[in-house]
Amino acid sequence: MQSIRKYKDQVSVYIDSIKLDRTPQELYQPISYILSLGGKQIRPVLTLMAADIFGTSVDKALYAATAIELFHNFSLMHDDIMDDASLRRGHQTVHEKWDVNTAILSGDAMLILAYQYFEHYEPEIFRDLAKLFSKTAIEVCEGQQMDICFENRNDVSVTEYIKMIEFKTAVLVGAALKMGAIVAQTSETNKQNIYDFGLNLGIAFQLQDDYLDAFGDENTFGKTIGGDILENKKTYLYLKAIINGKPSQQEELENFFSTAICSDETVKIQRVKELFIETGSAKDSLQLIKEYTKKALDILEQMDISEKKKEQLRQFSYELMDRKM
Amino acid sequence: MQSIRKYKDQVSVYIDSIKLDRTPQELYQPISYILSLGGKQIRPVLTLMAADIFGTSVDKALYAATAIELFHNFSLMHDDIMDDASLRRGHQTVHEKWDVNTAILSGDAMLILAYQYFEHYEPEIFRDLAKLFSKTAIEVCEGQQMDICFENRNDVSVTEYIKMIEFKTAVLVGAALKMGAIVAQTSETNKQNIYDFGLNLGIAFQLQDDYLDAFGDENTFGKTIGGDILENKKTYLYLKAIINGKPSQQEELENFFSTAICSDETVKIQRVKELFIETGSAKDSLQLIKEYTKKALDILEQMDISEKKKEQLRQFSYELMDRKM
Repeated sequence: MQSIRKYKDQVSVYIDSIKLDRTPQELYQPISYILSLGGKQIRPVLTLMAADIFGTSVDKALYAATAIELFHNFSLMHDDIMDDASLRRGHQTVHEKWDVNTAILSGDAMLILAYQYFEHYEPEIFRDLAKLFSKTAIEVCEGQQMDICFENRNDVSVTEYIKMIEFKTAVLVGAALKMGAIVAQTSETNKQNIYDFGLNLGIAFQLQDDYLDAFGDENTFGKTIGGDILENKKTYLYLKAIINGKPSQQEELENFFSTAICSDETVKIQRVKELFIETGSAKDSLQLIKEYTKKALDILEQMDISEKKKEQLRQFSYELMDRKM
Repeated sequence: MQSIRKYKDQVSVYIDSIKLDRTPQELYQPISYILSLGGKQIRPVLTLMAADIFGTSVDKALYAATAIELFHNFSLMHDDIMDDASLRRGHQTVHEKWDVNTAILSGDAMLILAYQYFEHYEPEIFRDLAKLFSKTAIEVCEGQQMDICFENRNDVSVTEYIKMIEFKTAVLVGAALKMGAIVAQTSETNKQNIYDFGLNLGIAFQLQDDYLDAFGDENTFGKTIGGDILENKKTYLYLKAIINGKPSQQEELENFFSTAICSDETVKIQRVKELFIETGSAKDSLQLIKEYTKKALDILEQMDISEKKKEQLRQFSYELMDRKM
C-alpha cells in the first residue's frame, strides 16, 4: 500500500504530462490552464487508492483517475460561469480570462475528453466505467440545478438539502472510489461498499465544509469565513436553525437571509453564527457530520479486504475529516 | 428496405416517447422543449438506414440514433448561446426562453444522456459506438471553435474552411451512418466506407447550404437569402472570390465584409452575389459540390452490399442534394 502523498504525486505527474497541443489551441489552452491550477486532486487520488486496495496496479487506474479529474474541472468551468465567479484557486476563472463562449466550449470538450480516457480499458471495464461515469455526471448536473433552484425557494427541507449535496458533491467521491474498484475487477459487493463508503464520507465532508465556512479558522480553512452567510446560502446550518428556532429567532434569520445588500458584513456574520449556536443547529450539524462519518466507517468494516487495507481507508477518513474547526 | 419516410416516422415516434419526467424539472424541461421543436432529424434517420442496409433490425439502431439526435441538439443549444441566436426552428432558443445558465446545464445533461443511450448495447458495440461518438463530438467542438476563430481572421484558406465544415457538420453525418453499421456488426471495410460516404456527402451538403444561402430560392430554401453575406461569413464563395478576383473586386468584397453596419442590405446582397458570379466563385462552388458528391457516390460503389441497397443510398444522396437552386 502506498501513501496518499505518493498517489497524489502520481496523479500530478500524469495529469501534467497530458499533451493538449491539438488545434485549435483556443479550445485546448483553457483546458491546460484550469488543469494547471492544481487543486487538491482528491478525487483521482481516491481512484488510485481504491485500485491499490483491491489489488491492481496503480498505473492501470491512472486513466480512470484522469477522467474523474477532467470531469471535476469541466463542472468547475461551467459552474463558474453560472455563479459568475471571477476567481478559482486564486486565479482568474476561464470565462474571465477568455470569455463565456470559450468556457462553454472548452468545458464541453473536457467532458468528452474524460470519456475518451476510458478507451484505454477493455470493453467490459470500459462499459462499466462509462456507465458509472454517466450516471454520476447526470446526478452532478441535477445537484447543480437543485442548488440553483434552492436559491429562490423558501421551503427547502433538510432532506432536499442533503440530496442536493449528495448529488452535487458526494456521488463523485463514491464514483471515484468505485472506478478504482472496477479497474481492479473486484467483487460487486466490494464495488458497492466502496461506493457507499465514499458517498457517506462525501456527505460528511460537504456538511463539514458548510460548517467550517461559518465556524472554521480562516488561517487553516483556506476560504473567507462567513462567505455562505453573506451569500444567504441556505445550508444545513440555516435550515436546521429555522426548524429549531423560536419565532423571534426564525424571523431574525429570515430577515438576514432575505436581503442581498448588507450594511455591516461583520455584524451579520457574527449574529448569524450566534443564532446557529443559540438554536442548536451548529451542534446538530456536528452531530450529523459524525453520523455520516460513522456510517462510512461502518460500511468499511463490511468490506472483504485485509485489516491493513481497512486501516488505510480509516486513516484517510480521519485525515479528510480532521480539518481545523 | 424501408423508405426514408418510414425511418423518419420511427425516429419521431421513439424520440417523442422519451420520458424526461425526472427531477429537477428545470433541468429536463428545456431538453424536452428543444426535442419537441422537431427539425429534419436527418442524422438519426441515417443511423436507421445504415443499420437496415447492413442487415440488422431498425429497432436495434434506435438507441444509437437517439444518441446522435441528442448530441445534435446539445450542440445546437450551446451554439445558440455562443451565436446569441434568439430563434431556433421558428421558436425561442432555450437561453432566450429560460436563461443562459439553464441552456448551459441542460445542454451538458443532454450530452451525458446521449452517452447513456449506448448502454442498451453489449460491451463491444457499446465501446465502438462511444469511441466513435467521442471522437466525433470532439471534432464538432473543434469545428465550432474554428468557425469562431475564422470570424476574426482575414487569412483563412480554402483548405481550412473545408476542414472547418468537415468537423462542424460532416463528421456527424459520417458518424450517424457508421453507428448503424456498428450496430449491424458489418465488416470494418463497410464501416469505413459508409463513414467516408457520409463525410463527403456532408461536405457537399454544407457547401450547397452555403451556396443556397446566397443563390437559393427563398420560398423553398427555408432561410432568408443573403444571411451569410449580411453576417460577413467567409464561406467558400467569399474565399474563392477573393482568390479568383481582380484587385478591384477583392477590394470591393473586402470592404463589404469588413463592416458590420450596412446602409442598404438589399444592395449589399445583390452586389456581393454579382461579385461571386463575376469572379467565378459561384461556378467553382457548384463544381466543388459536384466533386464531393461524386466522391461519396464513388465510395458507395466499393461497398460490399447489394445493388438494390446501393440504389437506395444513391436515391438518398440525390434527394438530399436536389434542393432548389
